[in-house]
Amino acid sequence: MGGDFAPDATVLGAIAAYKALEPQQKLVLIGDKNLAQRVFAEQNFSPDLIEFIHTTETIGMGEHPTKAITQKPNSSIGIGFSMLKAGEIDSFSSAGNTGAMLVGAMFSVKTVPGVIRPAISSVVPKVKKGYGIMLDVGANADCKPDTLLQFGVLGSLFVENIHGVANPRVGLINIGEEEGKGNMLMIATHSLMKETNLFNFVGNVEGRDMFYDKADVIVCDGFTGNVILKLAETFYDLTRNSGFENEFFAKFNYEQYGGSPILGVNAPVIIGHGISTPEAIKNMVLLSRSMITTKLIDKIKAAFK
Amino acid sequence: MGGDFAPDATVLGAIAAYKALEPQQKLVLIGDKNLAQRVFAEQNFSPDLIEFIHTTETIGMGEHPTKAITQKPNSSIGIGFSMLKAGEIDSFSSAGNTGAMLVGAMFSVKTVPGVIRPAISSVVPKVKKGYGIMLDVGANADCKPDTLLQFGVLGSLFVENIHGVANPRVGLINIGEEEGKGNMLMIATHSLMKETNLFNFVGNVEGRDMFYDKADVIVCDGFTGNVILKLAETFYDLTRNSGFENEFFAKFNYEQYGGSPILGVNAPVIIGHGISTPEAIKNMVLLSRSMITTKLIDKIKAAFK
Repeated sequence: MGGDFAPDATVLGAIAAYKALEPQQKLVLIGDKNLAQRVFAEQNFSPDLIEFIHTTETIGMGEHPTKAITQKPNSSIGIGFSMLKAGEIDSFSSAGNTGAMLVGAMFSVKTVPGVIRPAISSVVPKVKKGYGIMLDVGANADCKPDTLLQFGVLGSLFVENIHGVANPRVGLINIGEEEGKGNMLMIATHSLMKETNLFNFVGNVEGRDMFYDKADVIVCDGFTGNVILKLAETFYDLTRNSGFENEFFAKFNYEQYGGSPILGVNAPVIIGHGISTPEAIKNMVLLSRSMITTKLIDKIKAAFK
Repeated sequence: MGGDFAPDATVLGAIAAYKALEPQQKLVLIGDKNLAQRVFAEQNFSPDLIEFIHTTETIGMGEHPTKAITQKPNSSIGIGFSMLKAGEIDSFSSAGNTGAMLVGAMFSVKTVPGVIRPAISSVVPKVKKGYGIMLDVGANADCKPDTLLQFGVLGSLFVENIHGVANPRVGLINIGEEEGKGNMLMIATHSLMKETNLFNFVGNVEGRDMFYDKADVIVCDGFTGNVILKLAETFYDLTRNSGFENEFFAKFNYEQYGGSPILGVNAPVIIGHGISTPEAIKNMVLLSRSMITTKLIDKIKAAFK
């Protein structure tokens, strides 16, 4: 039921995802079955092919996350996290209330032991080819150096397993290339990262070179990351609305990435964009699958043991 | 002697500015006169029309600002600030080492009494029409709420006097629209700004709406501001290099704004872009003139008395 175009976009995306899944991979939809039936019928898709958990309760985009999660256990997000906690599903994704998704993940499957704070990661397109990730983009407005150090570990494991990049290069968002540049947080974090053998630290990454092939994982606090993310989305929209398209800018189309994983919790959880289309929903399901089949969570748990 | 294309771009820009100045407005160039002579000759411009202070010492782009300013009093930047302090010139601009310009201003003409920290401001183009400013974009990587509150005062006075905007709207960069959103710094600053009668506070401004007509002055810490500035420049370059042009993106061409003023010091000081062209240099001189003729500095001093 999450997202501006639910339930249509979600059901259409689920149908598309179903067709891409292998027989032993099962899809479970949670939401208002009566509303979904219409879409199934329109698509000539048998509703029996996808398991459906019926509920009519929803969490609105403007609701207070913690309040909503505690007071609405029967919302689609509430039920999703109960099922995830009980092991009835192996991953949970929604294009609904971002805060509720984050709080729900932390309350239900909980943070991986040893992880200080989970982070939300987002794709960063590269001008030349491929893409990297940036984290955190909004779960933690204030971060400490040891939290950012852990984001480097989480991001490396994600990129290594999901993007198939060996020995990923980790960069730190900063306002100068040299060590000693930046605010107190980034200066302290740079010192920690420089000495770490937990990942392959390649130094500071400035706003001007974040789209160039300097790093596979860009670490930042959630405040800076969120400002960057929204600014990049705005530039993408402004160019697209002006009729401008090119290979690089096309990579900013979030639909192809599906959503933003929460890294550092005990199960694969993905937050979809509020304006998720069927294509975005489908790719969110397929990204969930990759997070399951690569055993990413087990690898994260092992890294923080 | 500052900037990647000096002295040619500087001298050409000075010649263009000279033609735009009124008879009683005098231009003073500081640098290597022998190098400049060639440009004057090429342009058939009489060197006698512009006062020239000859020096061959320069501060390189990579030099440590404080060290360079103290050890190179005869550099073009060093001489400029001595003259500014002595009242021999009424404003000083350079496309040279940004840090040396900032340190030089604070060491020579000094911070306005009552101002905690000066800020560097930069133009923010708006999609619909006109442009606002953002500050700080790099002078202060770490800020406290009361420093950001003062940036609101400095920015308001600048926009009111230089852009001619009455009762400028001041917004705070943040990652949500509502009060209570953001990191600790922005939450505390929002509380201060909400209660202030020093300027017209209009609330939080997200990365996604900074180019829309929500505020005339956008306040942020120098870390966030610098990341935003460099990211915006990158997007501008990426679109332009791909052959894309439109009215809005054209406004990102820094040349038309001349440079970034340091606000909160006792004289008009402007830092030019390292890649300043003659057009940029000319506009930097004309912006200096506006800062003098509007008596902006006196108004800032009065506001902090």
